[in-house]
Amino acid sequence: MKKILLNEQEMPRSWYNITADIPTSVLPPLHPGTHEPIGPDDLAPLFPMELIMQEVSTERYIPIPDPVLDILSVWRPTPLVRANNFEQLLGTKSKIFFKNESVSPAGSHKPNTAVPQAYYNALEGTKTLSTETGAGQWGSALSLACNYFDLKCLVYMVRVSYDNKPFRKSMIETWGGRILPSPSDTTQVGRDILARDPNTPGSLGIAISEAVEVAAGDEKTKYSLGSVLNHVLLHQTIIGEEVKIQLEKEGIKPDVLVGCVGGGSNFAGLAFPFLPDKFAGKEIEFIAAEPTACPTLTRGKFGYDFGDTAQLTPLLAMSSLGHTFMPAKIHAGGLRYHGMAPQISALVQQGFITPRSYTQKDSFRAAIQFARSEGIIPAPESSHAIAATIAEVKKADAEGVSKTIIFNLSGHGHFDMAAYDNYLGGDLTDFEPSDQEIKKNLQVLPDIS
Amino acid sequence: MKKILLNEQEMPRSWYNITADIPTSVLPPLHPGTHEPIGPDDLAPLFPMELIMQEVSTERYIPIPDPVLDILSVWRPTPLVRANNFEQLLGTKSKIFFKNESVSPAGSHKPNTAVPQAYYNALEGTKTLSTETGAGQWGSALSLACNYFDLKCLVYMVRVSYDNKPFRKSMIETWGGRILPSPSDTTQVGRDILARDPNTPGSLGIAISEAVEVAAGDEKTKYSLGSVLNHVLLHQTIIGEEVKIQLEKEGIKPDVLVGCVGGGSNFAGLAFPFLPDKFAGKEIEFIAAEPTACPTLTRGKFGYDFGDTAQLTPLLAMSSLGHTFMPAKIHAGGLRYHGMAPQISALVQQGFITPRSYTQKDSFRAAIQFARSEGIIPAPESSHAIAATIAEVKKADAEGVSKTIIFNLSGHGHFDMAAYDNYLGGDLTDFEPSDQEIKKNLQVLPDIS
Repeated sequence: MKKILLNEQEMPRSWYNITADIPTSVLPPLHPGTHEPIGPDDLAPLFPMELIMQEVSTERYIPIPDPVLDILSVWRPTPLVRANNFEQLLGTKSKIFFKNESVSPAGSHKPNTAVPQAYYNALEGTKTLSTETGAGQWGSALSLACNYFDLKCLVYMVRVSYDNKPFRKSMIETWGGRILPSPSDTTQVGRDILARDPNTPGSLGIAISEAVEVAAGDEKTKYSLGSVLNHVLLHQTIIGEEVKIQLEKEGIKPDVLVGCVGGGSNFAGLAFPFLPDKFAGKEIEFIAAEPTACPTLTRGKFGYDFGDTAQLTPLLAMSSLGHTFMPAKIHAGGLRYHGMAPQISALVQQGFITPRSYTQKDSFRAAIQFARSEGIIPAPESSHAIAATIAEVKKADAEGVSKTIIFNLSGHGHFDMAAYDNYLGGDLTDFEPSDQEIKKNLQVLPDIS
Repeated sequence: MKKILLNEQEMPRSWYNITADIPTSVLPPLHPGTHEPIGPDDLAPLFPMELIMQEVSTERYIPIPDPVLDILSVWRPTPLVRANNFEQLLGTKSKIFFKNESVSPAGSHKPNTAVPQAYYNALEGTKTLSTETGAGQWGSALSLACNYFDLKCLVYMVRVSYDNKPFRKSMIETWGGRILPSPSDTTQVGRDILARDPNTPGSLGIAISEAVEVAAGDEKTKYSLGSVLNHVLLHQTIIGEEVKIQLEKEGIKPDVLVGCVGGGSNFAGLAFPFLPDKFAGKEIEFIAAEPTACPTLTRGKFGYDFGDTAQLTPLLAMSSLGHTFMPAKIHAGGLRYHGMAPQISALVQQGFITPRSYTQKDSFRAAIQFARSEGIIPAPESSHAIAATIAEVKKADAEGVSKTIIFNLSGHGHFDMAAYDNYLGGDLTDFEPSDQEIKKNLQVLPDIS
């Protein structure tokens, strides 16, 4: 059998909240001015109360509301697919499965959280959601989701991606959303940055600052984040919860789980439901694959840092390259973030998750091998997970063992064909920040004792 | 329940061959020179013998080979989806379902025939497959399929689409295929046409001529067609065979089946397995939706005509606008063909299928309504089927009845976002050939008595 499918009746009814099980507790977010732990009221200008409560909840399972399940069932449950053609091409004895999150209308896992975020906002009277987007996956997903609940959607897209991926704009507009290149002249943050550097490629940190500024300035506008925060990772656990049911159906035990990490949400979605096994001492590995051009987990520092460039967000306890870090213009725009989800950062610190980094060329080579064997053209972000999967497979083969490896195919590459052109044409450049650049940016991390 | 899913064990094991049941027999293809019916040997330079035998077979069911089923199971069976959000937006009492063929790696129904064609060719020693493509859906599908069976793939893409859809090129190359804009300087046909009109937008008829010329000139190169011929329509019947099983599971009886038609293959794939019910006198309607800019069934003539511009193919008994007809540059590149599958043409003649035509604006308006309710962004081709579905729904509502309507979502629009931009920006133009233009082109149909 190629695909393990679930019907809608088998769809998980709850999200899994890792806060209930994580062995060492995650340090709380701090107020950017006072450095005191923030409370629900501090976040109220930005998020609806239900999402704030999910952010701090210690309940192990949180029920998914029926209207959210109804929308998710447009494409969920997603298939868990045996990559037997890919295995054959690699000549491995290991078994490879991938969770196909590219089947959503927006083409990635992002709608898993966009839909509940839009739902809770609509319920609490929000009229407009503002957000940022890197590669465009998140902005598309939120535009799609807002549309289901009659909300307006305003997307700040990192300028380099806005210029390179014009069709993400068309997609967001097809669903009725509004999109602006960031930095823009619609915010004070944007105007200041443009005044200093009119040709800046932008960054997720800047785009977040703009979206937050807009939400903070209008009561009926709230802010929506596509990764990093606890409630976002929570919503993505429907991925891993489905995989658990799919594996149980066929009596399969995974040895290695792999995902790419930018802010961490697709990785968390697959991995978190399986982590209690690791906490209990079972032999199972979790590989988080990031780009060498933005090596947050492999070369960053764990500590408190701002989530955005303009220092508007709370301070988060996380791995960071420093909120001033400006990653190179790699095609995997969704992985160009200076920080990392606090929960994932803590789990890496505690040794439960192993980070690895891969170059653009590693990733596209892996992507082409996957496309020419399994057919599906992966997103440049997901290609990092495929590169990591190939590395795991080769390690297992070298050790003479057969492993069962599951990776998250977080999205398709239909809006990234220019990147494939770039790679196939031999014009792709690899980037790696110098030690000096890393060191310089790490100095901006505030000293919190 | 939103989606009716089948598992791989439930996938149909045979294609349905309508030749066994069609009430009036379809007129045979004729040799372009002698006007005598052609035999299998006449087609041998272009096609492998197994496909030629399928072309003329009178068996009701033809088994699908296991290696073909293995590849199809990468994405098949495809979901049959209840479009309840779309129904709600239309405010109708009717039930709408769509068969989601956009979930294949190439993004359309085309791999359903590309895979068996590549398989039979590989089995009989072919090394290269040449073909034409309009919007790029077929070229992508064949490049994908060739890749599974280690065949080389050479695609002639209608120049206007090649220029408008650069990412189809990247997609074809990602799977290892080679692509050229048509007309090209690699064939005599192409050079002749370029000499007369260097700025020609090209047409499917010209691209077919080029691909056929290349195949005829090399023993190890065969030609592959993505629509029109009996064996192509046969392979697509897996769509309708799946829908039959899906409807039976839920006890649903369809009243209307809808598909868009260019050469006719996705429509045939959905409709043919249900046509015996109509032959037996049951009340069920079949709507074939075509663009007003290329109104083959609604304004063309039934008779013998060439399949291509250069008069290299056999003469087919079909509805045609004349092989010299040059359709306007509409975004639905896959529907810009002067002819129509002989089986569909005959069934329209016999009154079993009702043709309708829709403008670009009709289609994009329908597509946006669908995208903003169901999420999925449809291909411009499939949008014609959606426009026809809306018309059927409105008719039923006006009559005060509730109908069950199924349309084929033959592909997604991820590579057509420039077309959506064009529509959303208010810059879309509608085209309709004048009576004079239609009349002039119909004069080229050869007089066969």
